[in-house]
Amino acid sequence: MPNRTVFFVSDGTGITAETFGNSILNQFAAKPRHVRRPFIDTPEKARLVAREIDATFAAEGKRPIVFITLIDPEVHDIVALSKGLVLDMFQTFVEPLEAEFGIKSNHRVGRFDDISKNQEYTDRIEAINFALAHDDGQSAKNLDTADVILVGVSRSGKTPTSLYLAMQHGVKAANYPLIPEDFDRHALPKPLAPHKEKCFGLTIAPERLAEIRHERRPNSVYASIENCRREVAAAESMMRREGIGWLSSTHKSIEEIATTILRDIRPDRLIY
Amino acid sequence: MPNRTVFFVSDGTGITAETFGNSILNQFAAKPRHVRRPFIDTPEKARLVAREIDATFAAEGKRPIVFITLIDPEVHDIVALSKGLVLDMFQTFVEPLEAEFGIKSNHRVGRFDDISKNQEYTDRIEAINFALAHDDGQSAKNLDTADVILVGVSRSGKTPTSLYLAMQHGVKAANYPLIPEDFDRHALPKPLAPHKEKCFGLTIAPERLAEIRHERRPNSVYASIENCRREVAAAESMMRREGIGWLSSTHKSIEEIATTILRDIRPDRLIY
Repeated sequence: MPNRTVFFVSDGTGITAETFGNSILNQFAAKPRHVRRPFIDTPEKARLVAREIDATFAAEGKRPIVFITLIDPEVHDIVALSKGLVLDMFQTFVEPLEAEFGIKSNHRVGRFDDISKNQEYTDRIEAINFALAHDDGQSAKNLDTADVILVGVSRSGKTPTSLYLAMQHGVKAANYPLIPEDFDRHALPKPLAPHKEKCFGLTIAPERLAEIRHERRPNSVYASIENCRREVAAAESMMRREGIGWLSSTHKSIEEIATTILRDIRPDRLIY
Repeated sequence: MPNRTVFFVSDGTGITAETFGNSILNQFAAKPRHVRRPFIDTPEKARLVAREIDATFAAEGKRPIVFITLIDPEVHDIVALSKGLVLDMFQTFVEPLEAEFGIKSNHRVGRFDDISKNQEYTDRIEAINFALAHDDGQSAKNLDTADVILVGVSRSGKTPTSLYLAMQHGVKAANYPLIPEDFDRHALPKPLAPHKEKCFGLTIAPERLAEIRHERRPNSVYASIENCRREVAAAESMMRREGIGWLSSTHKSIEEIATTILRDIRPDRLIY
């Protein structure tokens, strides 16, 4: 699909418009050009975007696809009247909900009113700080306040997962590496012993691990396939022995790993 | 709105279903109970969820609201036939797009086929590692490969913003603190001088900064309102003098800050 453009137009960050639009475009084997237009919150800005959409149509000869999340009716109507194919999640779904709830929607723009007074938001920032302070076994302090402790060999995906859990879910995730010394001692690292029920393991295919480690330290023993095989086998047998739940990060995105962990270790977080 | 439950049901992580659902629920002054049901990818799992929705209806006497992103037709239909008010983003928008594109959708589940072979995904992980290695001015190495360098006083929001830019956008963001010594010398920290055009400043209201710092180091000079006022004034005057673009993080979420930075410093990232 050459010469086709997709616009994401929003009065806020456009994150909702993009998540929404991309998940739908993913259903097509097409790679259209993407254009983001965030913070479109006045009629003047809306007119500029509408003009841009119309100009794109004229230049490409094909209607641009336009995903919008625009609350203000005046701003909304200006973009909706452009010559693109406008797909509007809000108008489509807000009406049936107004009928169901028996109340009017408030036409509120944005996710947070005032960030500095929002507890959910404060929790997320605090969780990020916690993840950073407890990255890579840096500190065994306050592990009792962790929601989850990720364990696994170096480069198995612990750090990005713990940051994601913090940033998106406000979950306090520490992470702790399993290193050859632990395998020799045939025991979990001491600081983890009292918190075994909070541990969650990440493993990874040795071939993939070797690839990742080679990028970091080319041609090292650390990155060699033999060493990766040995470490992964030892880590998996330790997790099995200690009864720690685990999954493989080889073919999974951070988002998928994080969601699985939430479901398994903190099912209460599935209801909020 | 007591006794009303919202379900997010997805065959993947459910992130799209939740983003979608929450942005619509935000239009209502209601706080319903939220239930996440990710990875619903077989008819058996779908039947369990449908039963749960029906049981909730029976118990609460009000139809649950059910946001779904389910691609497989069989799985989809089982949940769609539950007694909830089912809101389905996919079916609603995929059809008009099939007509517009003149091609059928591929009913693909999930965002990535195989993470280990996905360049966009590899870029995100690399950007996270970069952000961690260049957090808080830790390393001045490779600053030339940074997409953006966030500068500002301690606790102005640089770290979460740089991690978010990395995780969500694959943008390599370093961050560098402005400290009292820099203000005394009336000059940008030396490592930043050659990269001024890539710098982006974060500032913050002194009152809010004092609040945040007090949580970290209660009753310290560092956290005192006088010191916060002095540091913020000096940082703002330095950014003004050096011609560095900046914004205030006081009332903004990480998402809003990150989107503004992308728009201002890397407008090319708005088209991809």
